[in-house]
Amino acid sequence: METIACATQMQAWAERTRQAGKTIALVPTMGCLHEGHLSLMRLARKQADYLVVSIFVNPTQFAPHEDFDAYPRQLEQDLDGCRDEGADVVFTPQQDSLYTAGFQTYVITQDISKPLCGASRPAFFRGVTTVVTKLFHMVDPHVAVFGEKDYQQLMVIRQMAQDLNFNINIIGAPTVREADGLAMSSRNTYLSPDDRRVALSLYQSLSATQAAVAAGETDSQTLIDTATRAIARHAQTRIDYIAIVDPLSLEPMPHIDRSARMALAVFVGGTRLIDNIALYPAVRPRV
Amino acid sequence: METIACATQMQAWAERTRQAGKTIALVPTMGCLHEGHLSLMRLARKQADYLVVSIFVNPTQFAPHEDFDAYPRQLEQDLDGCRDEGADVVFTPQQDSLYTAGFQTYVITQDISKPLCGASRPAFFRGVTTVVTKLFHMVDPHVAVFGEKDYQQLMVIRQMAQDLNFNINIIGAPTVREADGLAMSSRNTYLSPDDRRVALSLYQSLSATQAAVAAGETDSQTLIDTATRAIARHAQTRIDYIAIVDPLSLEPMPHIDRSARMALAVFVGGTRLIDNIALYPAVRPRV
Repeated sequence: METIACATQMQAWAERTRQAGKTIALVPTMGCLHEGHLSLMRLARKQADYLVVSIFVNPTQFAPHEDFDAYPRQLEQDLDGCRDEGADVVFTPQQDSLYTAGFQTYVITQDISKPLCGASRPAFFRGVTTVVTKLFHMVDPHVAVFGEKDYQQLMVIRQMAQDLNFNINIIGAPTVREADGLAMSSRNTYLSPDDRRVALSLYQSLSATQAAVAAGETDSQTLIDTATRAIARHAQTRIDYIAIVDPLSLEPMPHIDRSARMALAVFVGGTRLIDNIALYPAVRPRV
Repeated sequence: METIACATQMQAWAERTRQAGKTIALVPTMGCLHEGHLSLMRLARKQADYLVVSIFVNPTQFAPHEDFDAYPRQLEQDLDGCRDEGADVVFTPQQDSLYTAGFQTYVITQDISKPLCGASRPAFFRGVTTVVTKLFHMVDPHVAVFGEKDYQQLMVIRQMAQDLNFNINIIGAPTVREADGLAMSSRNTYLSPDDRRVALSLYQSLSATQAAVAAGETDSQTLIDTATRAIARHAQTRIDYIAIVDPLSLEPMPHIDRSARMALAVFVGGTRLIDNIALYPAVRPRV
């Protein structure tokens, strides 16, 4: 396994690899790798001849008051994880080299980045689409794999890839959960033991909603109200949003008459957690 | 020479060409090719194994009140020109396929796209950087050639390519002029014979400024005032801007103590013309 820190060297590697007729899969990460990331790597590994994992905590997707400085970093351990999953290259660009003096170019998506996480983190998706564009230009992958845990991010990147004619297959991979259902996240390390117990209410509410929809409930507001009560009864939670949306456009769906996505963001203690689940309406016999 | 209209087919061509170890040069145009475009092709032709010329009148860089519908189109003649200059591929994507329903992703540059043409055409550079990104992703060139006639556009694209890590060499090519000095432009076809005579005052002012700077004048405002008077004495002109700026950042340079760029945009009759010239201060013996 090779570690490359330099953008130019990464591009030269990609050019050589492509000229040899080989294909490249990319898993972009911010490091602090957990089982969720490893599952993305295992999926990506099967999609192409070579697997590149990037590790870069991207400053432009954090707001000034957010946890950029505190975000967990553990490079040595991450490199071991990448090696175990058969990564060929770990790309670890440095902040100074990606954002040089005078940096001023951004990739923006419009409607799809406005609701949900975009409402409370207005600069977030601009940071994500910009750095992913940069990574795509440096690694030049045929395939890139993103987790469904960050569902809106996945859909924003799909939209960007389509609109800007990126010749890259964007693959979404299922959320990996702890044994009790909590979605894996690098930010789970912030949770106190008590917060950790309360955090489970997010997944419990999502799966209860999924079950209610499968059983015939179709009114989104009723479902959102139930989930809100189940989470808000814990004193240390603060709900950012709970929404039921169209799985592609992310527009609100008041009535669940086709497949939908429920997404939520909740502060537990000081930690903002997100999760989401697919909703499939009950199949009713035609009258 | 091959004509390709389909984005997917263009990408497949680029992939085959790169896998064969060959290099690609791109000249993006809006068609209505004149000697200026042909000179870009001749330059590009020498930079790579294959020359691709794109012809696409890009709607997103025109404001609603501008001349998108009236912009001259002459595909057959353009194809002849490309053939004569040894183009290997002419890429003629269709508007519907580049901007599908729900299109919402843009590439934006900040400071560098605000002054000069950016001030009076606020959506212009966003349209340019977005479509050039799309063309880069479809043609996948090693080299792309742009004319210095659109000086700010060239600098905006250089900045974008650097910030987004495009692995593409951006080359600027000198402005091609008519025998009397008027910069070649597809929009010159809009000029009446009388407007055509008056339009020459743009180049005359630029070259008079260049001579004055070489002779020792260093005060930008004096130079701008002189050029303004020379152009404004023609009743059918309306000056959008005349500016002396840093050649890289495009920030105003009140005092010409190093090389600079003079740029202007002037309406002649109903036609908006732009032009620019390099200014080099007189070399003075050190005291």
